Amino acid sequence: MSLKLTILGCHSATPRSFAHPTSQYLEINNNTFLIDCGEGTQSQLRKYKLKFSKIKTIFISHLHGDHFFGLIGLISTFSLLNRQTELHIYGPKGIKEIIDLQFKLSKSGVSFPLHFHELVSKESELIYEDSKVTVYTVPLSHRIYTNGFLFKEKPKERKLRMEVISKFPEIEICDYQNLKNGKDFIRSNGEIISNDELTLPPPPVLKYAFCSDTNYFEDIIPIIKKVDLLYHESTFLEDKKELAKKTKHSTALQAATIAKKGKVKKLILGHYSSRYKDFNLFLQEAKSIFDNVELSETGKVFSIVNT
Amino acid sequence: MSLKLTILGCHSATPRSFAHPTSQYLEINNNTFLIDCGEGTQSQLRKYKLKFSKIKTIFISHLHGDHFFGLIGLISTFSLLNRQTELHIYGPKGIKEIIDLQFKLSKSGVSFPLHFHELVSKESELIYEDSKVTVYTVPLSHRIYTNGFLFKEKPKERKLRMEVISKFPEIEICDYQNLKNGKDFIRSNGEIISNDELTLPPPPVLKYAFCSDTNYFEDIIPIIKKVDLLYHESTFLEDKKELAKKTKHSTALQAATIAKKGKVKKLILGHYSSRYKDFNLFLQEAKSIFDNVELSETGKVFSIVNT
Repeated sequence: MSLKLTILGCHSATPRSFAHPTSQYLEINNNTFLIDCGEGTQSQLRKYKLKFSKIKTIFISHLHGDHFFGLIGLISTFSLLNRQTELHIYGPKGIKEIIDLQFKLSKSGVSFPLHFHELVSKESELIYEDSKVTVYTVPLSHRIYTNGFLFKEKPKERKLRMEVISKFPEIEICDYQNLKNGKDFIRSNGEIISNDELTLPPPPVLKYAFCSDTNYFEDIIPIIKKVDLLYHESTFLEDKKELAKKTKHSTALQAATIAKKGKVKKLILGHYSSRYKDFNLFLQEAKSIFDNVELSETGKVFSIVNT
Repeated sequence: MSLKLTILGCHSATPRSFAHPTSQYLEINNNTFLIDCGEGTQSQLRKYKLKFSKIKTIFISHLHGDHFFGLIGLISTFSLLNRQTELHIYGPKGIKEIIDLQFKLSKSGVSFPLHFHELVSKESELIYEDSKVTVYTVPLSHRIYTNGFLFKEKPKERKLRMEVISKFPEIEICDYQNLKNGKDFIRSNGEIISNDELTLPPPPVLKYAFCSDTNYFEDIIPIIKKVDLLYHESTFLEDKKELAKKTKHSTALQAATIAKKGKVKKLILGHYSSRYKDFNLFLQEAKSIFDNVELSETGKVFSIVNT
């Protein structure tokens, strides 16, 4: 079980040469997702040598420009590179119309199957599932319809304790799958050998929650509870608490409060307003109530491995 | 009379860290225009320290992504910076719908008056005029509706030859404007003093023609004739002449042929396909028939001053 998150951009609003808007490249359980896609994301992917072809699914939190203006360019580039594999895009209602209109007016199409999954629910819902990962929305409280996303690894099978199993010659290879699935073994005499004796539990699953942009919003706590990694926006510091409230953003202290109440293992901050020059102030403010916190920085990689 | 052209991007199709899509910042006769606006243009403007606030008019050649995907982000940034002065955008029909849709779905507006001037004519037309500059379209031959643009300085007034004028005490200060406008002076005895005697001609006006993207298209020659500076796309070399024809682009030789037949003073090449690594091959190919040619390069500045 492994999770690797590369920050492609973690600044709010206007892109600058040193401050790229939100985008993250998430590798989890050997699956790759792109989360948000501000202007210049495709250049950032190239800069950090992250493979375009691995991205099969893109999640867009909301339709403010600093979270999706790079999407049309990325899709166009996929097509120019003659991509063949399908691409799925999850985002708010309207995202399909924006992309379709631009392809219509350019009288061009895409080289691959492009599927939109438009989100409208205000309740957390399962939106993506494959054999390795599930993704749920984390409805947020922003000026427009916005979702965060919760990525959860699916549990692996239990591990066979061969040194124990070998003591029972009646357990055959064809029984192994049942044991991996957690079933007890029933001997011919009716005696039950508990699965706990014959197997070890799989490594714990990893969970990553991405929450941007949002007001301080306690409704998300049950959804993001105890995740291994929480990205929570911190556009402002407490000195601009009123502005945060007005613009429906969070302060670093508020992000840390959510992390603390949600008992998450680690918090990462981002979406910094361009008014701040010293990002360590965000770290200090958050650390005042929650210890395991780090700043997201462009190009920074966060890795977790459970074995 | 002066012209300063800064190349913000001169590569075709997909942006890369070293290859920015088309955009040019033109300062002509103390007026500033942005021509095309590929993804990342706003970052390029910042990189080269070019003032956002000076841009009052943007010209978009066509609706292929590498020429306009940066426009929505630039407009958004203008608004985030609380721009108040109006912005005029000239481009193909449809451009307003693309921008409007994205602002509608983000439930945001712009802080300044935003005016679209959608182009549909297939004939060259005067689309912009102020006291210093006129701009005409240069209809091109591409896969979709595409215009180049011809920027022409307006002539300055004639210069008074004070050493001559002082010999005629009857010429008063209130007569000067007529002389600057080219009128002869009529003495009280009816004698005509020719304007040529009393004034010198103003410096010659400068003309810049921007032509991207287009097939080899001789129809543009009468429009761009004798311009001081011609930017003509050269996506390919002659080795890909057939591909150029098929995709409705030009080779460096074809660009040079247009420059030669149009008797322009200087040609600059650009919009290079990513398949080429050695751009000097473009220069060599063009120079085989037209001597005064240069490569456009990201960040390069072309200046002309007429005094």
